[in-house]
Amino acid sequence: MQYLGYGSGRGYPHDHTVWPAAGFAVLVMDTRGVSGTGGMPGVTPDPHGGSGPQVPGFVTAGIHDPERYYHRRVFTDAVRALHAAAAAPGVDPARIAVAGGSQGGAIAQAAAALHAHLPGPTPAAALIDVPFLTHVRRAVDITDSEPYRELVRYLSTRRHDVDEVFATLSYFDGLNLASYGSVPALYSVALRDPVCPPSTVFAAYHAWPGPKEIRVWPFNQHEGGGTEQRGEQLRYLRDLWG
Amino acid sequence: MQYLGYGSGRGYPHDHTVWPAAGFAVLVMDTRGVSGTGGMPGVTPDPHGGSGPQVPGFVTAGIHDPERYYHRRVFTDAVRALHAAAAAPGVDPARIAVAGGSQGGAIAQAAAALHAHLPGPTPAAALIDVPFLTHVRRAVDITDSEPYRELVRYLSTRRHDVDEVFATLSYFDGLNLASYGSVPALYSVALRDPVCPPSTVFAAYHAWPGPKEIRVWPFNQHEGGGTEQRGEQLRYLRDLWG
Amino acid sequence: MQYLGYGSGRGYPHDHTVWPAAGFAVLVMDTRGVSGTGGMPGVTPDPHGGSGPQVPGFVTAGIHDPERYYHRRVFTDAVRALHAAAAAPGVDPARIAVAGGSQGGAIAQAAAALHAHLPGPTPAAALIDVPFLTHVRRAVDITDSEPYRELVRYLSTRRHDVDEVFATLSYFDGLNLASYGSVPALYSVALRDPVCPPSTVFAAYHAWPGPKEIRVWPFNQHEGGGTEQRGEQLRYLRDLWG
Amino acid sequence: MQYLGYGSGRGYPHDHTVWPAAGFAVLVMDTRGVSGTGGMPGVTPDPHGGSGPQVPGFVTAGIHDPERYYHRRVFTDAVRALHAAAAAPGVDPARIAVAGGSQGGAIAQAAAALHAHLPGPTPAAALIDVPFLTHVRRAVDITDSEPYRELVRYLSTRRHDVDEVFATLSYFDGLNLASYGSVPALYSVALRDPVCPPSTVFAAYHAWPGPKEIRVWPFNQHEGGGTEQRGEQLRYLRDLWG
Amino acid sequence: MQYLGYGSGRGYPHDHTVWPAAGFAVLVMDTRGVSGTGGMPGVTPDPHGGSGPQVPGFVTAGIHDPERYYHRRVFTDAVRALHAAAAAPGVDPARIAVAGGSQGGAIAQAAAALHAHLPGPTPAAALIDVPFLTHVRRAVDITDSEPYRELVRYLSTRRHDVDEVFATLSYFDGLNLASYGSVPALYSVALRDPVCPPSTVFAAYHAWPGPKEIRVWPFNQHEGGGTEQRGEQLRYLRDLWG
Amino acid sequence: MQYLGYGSGRGYPHDHTVWPAAGFAVLVMDTRGVSGTGGMPGVTPDPHGGSGPQVPGFVTAGIHDPERYYHRRVFTDAVRALHAAAAAPGVDPARIAVAGGSQGGAIAQAAAALHAHLPGPTPAAALIDVPFLTHVRRAVDITDSEPYRELVRYLSTRRHDVDEVFATLSYFDGLNLASYGSVPALYSVALRDPVCPPSTVFAAYHAWPGPKEIRVWPFNQHEGGGTEQRGEQLRYLRDLWG
Repeated sequence: MQYLGYGSGRGYPHDHTVWPAAGFAVLVMDTRGVSGTGGMPGVTPDPHGGSGPQVPGFVTAGIHDPERYYHRRVFTDAVRALHAAAAAPGVDPARIAVAGGSQGGAIAQAAAALHAHLPGPTPAAALIDVPFLTHVRRAVDITDSEPYRELVRYLSTRRHDVDEVFATLSYFDGLNLASYGSVPALYSVALRDPVCPPSTVFAAYHAWPGPKEIRVWPFNQHEGGGTEQRGEQLRYLRDLWG
Repeated sequence: MQYLGYGSGRGYPHDHTVWPAAGFAVLVMDTRGVSGTGGMPGVTPDPHGGSGPQVPGFVTAGIHDPERYYHRRVFTDAVRALHAAAAAPGVDPARIAVAGGSQGGAIAQAAAALHAHLPGPTPAAALIDVPFLTHVRRAVDITDSEPYRELVRYLSTRRHDVDEVFATLSYFDGLNLASYGSVPALYSVALRDPVCPPSTVFAAYHAWPGPKEIRVWPFNQHEGGGTEQRGEQLRYLRDLWG
Repeated sequence: MQYLGYGSGRGYPHDHTVWPAAGFAVLVMDTRGVSGTGGMPGVTPDPHGGSGPQVPGFVTAGIHDPERYYHRRVFTDAVRALHAAAAAPGVDPARIAVAGGSQGGAIAQAAAALHAHLPGPTPAAALIDVPFLTHVRRAVDITDSEPYRELVRYLSTRRHDVDEVFATLSYFDGLNLASYGSVPALYSVALRDPVCPPSTVFAAYHAWPGPKEIRVWPFNQHEGGGTEQRGEQLRYLRDLWG
Repeated sequence: MQYLGYGSGRGYPHDHTVWPAAGFAVLVMDTRGVSGTGGMPGVTPDPHGGSGPQVPGFVTAGIHDPERYYHRRVFTDAVRALHAAAAAPGVDPARIAVAGGSQGGAIAQAAAALHAHLPGPTPAAALIDVPFLTHVRRAVDITDSEPYRELVRYLSTRRHDVDEVFATLSYFDGLNLASYGSVPALYSVALRDPVCPPSTVFAAYHAWPGPKEIRVWPFNQHEGGGTEQRGEQLRYLRDLWG
Repeated sequence: MQYLGYGSGRGYPHDHTVWPAAGFAVLVMDTRGVSGTGGMPGVTPDPHGGSGPQVPGFVTAGIHDPERYYHRRVFTDAVRALHAAAAAPGVDPARIAVAGGSQGGAIAQAAAALHAHLPGPTPAAALIDVPFLTHVRRAVDITDSEPYRELVRYLSTRRHDVDEVFATLSYFDGLNLASYGSVPALYSVALRDPVCPPSTVFAAYHAWPGPKEIRVWPFNQHEGGGTEQRGEQLRYLRDLWG
Repeated sequence: MQYLGYGSGRGYPHDHTVWPAAGFAVLVMDTRGVSGTGGMPGVTPDPHGGSGPQVPGFVTAGIHDPERYYHRRVFTDAVRALHAAAAAPGVDPARIAVAGGSQGGAIAQAAAALHAHLPGPTPAAALIDVPFLTHVRRAVDITDSEPYRELVRYLSTRRHDVDEVFATLSYFDGLNLASYGSVPALYSVALRDPVCPPSTVFAAYHAWPGPKEIRVWPFNQHEGGGTEQRGEQLRYLRDLWG
């Protein structure tokens, strides 16, 4: 299972040849309502969108109500896509990994964590790179980069809604979700990442109760380990599943 | 009638004291779905939102279908707000002006133009400052500023949707709408405006068939005439209505 | 009494309708020698200017001599304008508030504080938003924004004049002046303000010996509380004066 | 044959799975002396480097002597890599395409063009995306982006060496090399490309005498057609070779 | 005679060793009221300053009155300094050159041109590099760089003062002054100069009726010919005076 | 002896008149392989360059091998240039000072330190301004400016080479070299220097065991003390040598 970063669409099959080339089937989940910016196009609508006022972006869409928050639908998509993957022909349901970087890391982290409370197949591993939407309260204080800045822009005008906004986010914050993580997880973090600050990633990593490893890239920004991390992931799954 | 610029919310009564101080009642239309960034908060939801994929922002929301395009709802709000204003106690329905700058200028322009095809009260004047969403095809070619750049970001990934996107926009482009404008209009344009380039504003001004004047501010950017234009508007309405 | 921010001119009556709309008479003091940039024009000359070398700007004008420092004239103007306001017809001299943000906050703070040593009417309240020229020595160390950076640019060339410059500034520093503040004061501070850093504002607030309140805006930059702070001020004066 | 963009290293096999997934063998040529920045690492030294003074970068390395210019060695590598590819087991020497974007586009263009004067196998197709080092004299006048700006920085100090520098570059300029191109070529160009301006790409395309097509991406910058262009290339080769 | 660029102070004798090393005595005129930014300190006050409102900077100081405009005093200083130089011991009054770059170029140009209408010694040559304050009306339209931008900032608020401002400037514009230039002049211009655009420099050069040469630096910005131009000047004076 | 900053070429005799004007002969060492950017041209080739992969720049050239690292050749040049200076006619070998700022400061520091282990003449004083390549491990962590950033860019892709890179650098790091410094040294440091952070300069200064002084410029960036420091140096040598 591959989840996508903020603003990326699903693209085409030829955009996702790495996993098949290594012998894994891959299912890519298009992030609903996202068209893609500068890269791969997405085509999946978000018919249930449309809610309260927001600033442009997907971080504040529906932020005043956990029931209508955009990421509720995205995380639900993620779990259901996992079920779809498990039911696909030729897939061993006991050997499904969820993977993603940035927003995709948040989704993978959530999908892996949420299964603990859900019926149906469970992922067997989680590959979580530089996850977004994790320890949000700290992130907005220490970084000025998008997409966390979307929250700051929102709260700079909705000056009285700070508590309500963070109450909604608490249901989706990777730091909280990670504490339900029981499957083996391979995290990565970049020490110069201005988008998803390292301390927010370490916080989630430390909260994850299952077996875990983390790769630390000291000279990288949000690109993280890049191709090296991809190699780490291939080796990790090989070691895990023989 | 006051319409708001892109990203601005309705704020509070004390944000709109100029017109009352000059003896005009004012009705401010909150732009649906917009929270406000860095300034006045908006509170009006957009319950009918939620459609195809988009990049963050309100320019590409629903862009693949004129029936579902975000500005269809906004322009409809504008016309209906005009009706509400006309029906308000103490308002002379024959002396209603629509006004706005930037996105608000686009809305005022649309509201003034659309009444030609609609039953109900008509505005008696239009005050249109540095309007956005006007001669869009040209704008995206000559400026790199937001919010026009939102279209460029969208089309940079949706490479095959250029014709479809501009087909939708043609229903909302101020250049087309201005050609229905019959009421007296006071435009303003700033010759160094990187957000709403002057040639796109002049195009709409020249297309407007009704009585019209334009104030040209040679050394200004998107702030346009600012307080001077406000003074021009006060004098213009005074001259118009005695 | 309204004092203006750095670089702003007095504008026109229609730029100052908020206070009258709320039932207060308002006197706006044009800041001498300032034309206004990008906004409201100012028209008041500074005939006594012209002194030692400076870098462009008003922070270093006359900086080598407290007798000739630009802000000496501005603060004197502020006190005299206060006297003029008190003598105006229809004004209750016991109910005058001084108000301003940024440089205007510095002027309001100074005007409120200086009356302790001066004959004549005293303001009854001070509304001080994100004040500039306050705890200057700290400000130049922790922010790189204009107009504090004007001092840094000056001292980067006048390398041997550091002590002399700060000696002059000590007469005008809001941190020192605040310690004379005895009237009720409503401060505001923005925790992400890069122009007037929050610690410099808190320093003055804590130094103010009179009755005081402060509104803290955690997600705002130099715009501070904006329209919300304006609402706070209206409520504050209403509570104070019934 | 895949050539790499400016500053990119060869990376790992898992960085190059697209072509194999589509049924093509792929040989990636590491660009000598380039370590890679922010992405894939390169490991190939440039033992013959070391020459006259230069500014940091590979565009001005050896610029005073066509015999010692850096790109002479790179283009030679490209031709020899082509020979190596043709001799590899399982490769049909009659069905080799050279491909690359940006600097890689310059190398592919050069490799395809130079074979006309060289013994040995010839490429059967060229896939040239947004090529760099093409119509250089024009490029330095109309763009301020790196890596063309490296030349401007050099000539801003070597003020008397303009003619000599462009004399060296004339041996390597894609506009000149393209005129030897006889094999089928699929170009791509992005109309908002600030790095390799479109007019420089069109110039080479028009100079190419062999069969040719070009894909024009109107809303893209240097990323060009991205995944869409990749799809075009896959279709193009399929059509060409059945 | 050496005049200084905008914002530069006179510094120390060891900042001006080039001319003496080449056998010329040098008199450096401190620009009044200027402290220097980031470089050489200036110490000369401008006691006659202090006039109408302005934006920070020396371009708009006194701009509403040719009698009180800042550059009137500076140009007068320049002529008087020339007289002082001519009267200094060891100076051959028939072999005085005025020199400067940027604002210093404007001053040198003015000093050389004004002598035609003045009694007293005349300079024998003018070395004018990338002069500022020349063809100002065009400059503000084609560049957005400081210090020309100071005028734009001023006029963006003083929207009704455009004609008056340019009327004042017409007395000091190098394009007008150059037409009085009768002594041999060596100009320089940089084709990528964003501060003093080349067309404004060429305009003055063409207006200069006396004997003249110009060095054109195609790859330079406002640094112009730098050390190469210094060499040109040394050769030029040597050729002129044997 | 004058060594040059990063990217500067040797220029012309008229670029180096300060020291002769003060009575000192000066020998300027061109930094090999450096053409100069935007300023003085350099003409000295680096025939022994050409080694492993690198990112553009001179900091990572040969970084994998202390024997082939670029600065090995530069520091060797510096020592040999010192010998050449000592042998020049009219030079008192007992009164040679090495001097430089930034990269030139690194070279001067190295040249002064290395003589302790070398036969031949020794410098009698070192003038070291804001030295580069000093306490490198700390510098890359606290500054994001070039040229230190060149290392970060390199290591962001060469993720596994961190130890090897710093092992090479340890032979050239000014912090290590300074500990061999026995001659009188005048350092300077600028407290706002983003290029060579002050803590890295202080570290070297404290490590220098010989007689030493340091000038601290609190409001300056990488320009350091500029003309004031030059004055300090002239006085320092005068005091030292009578």
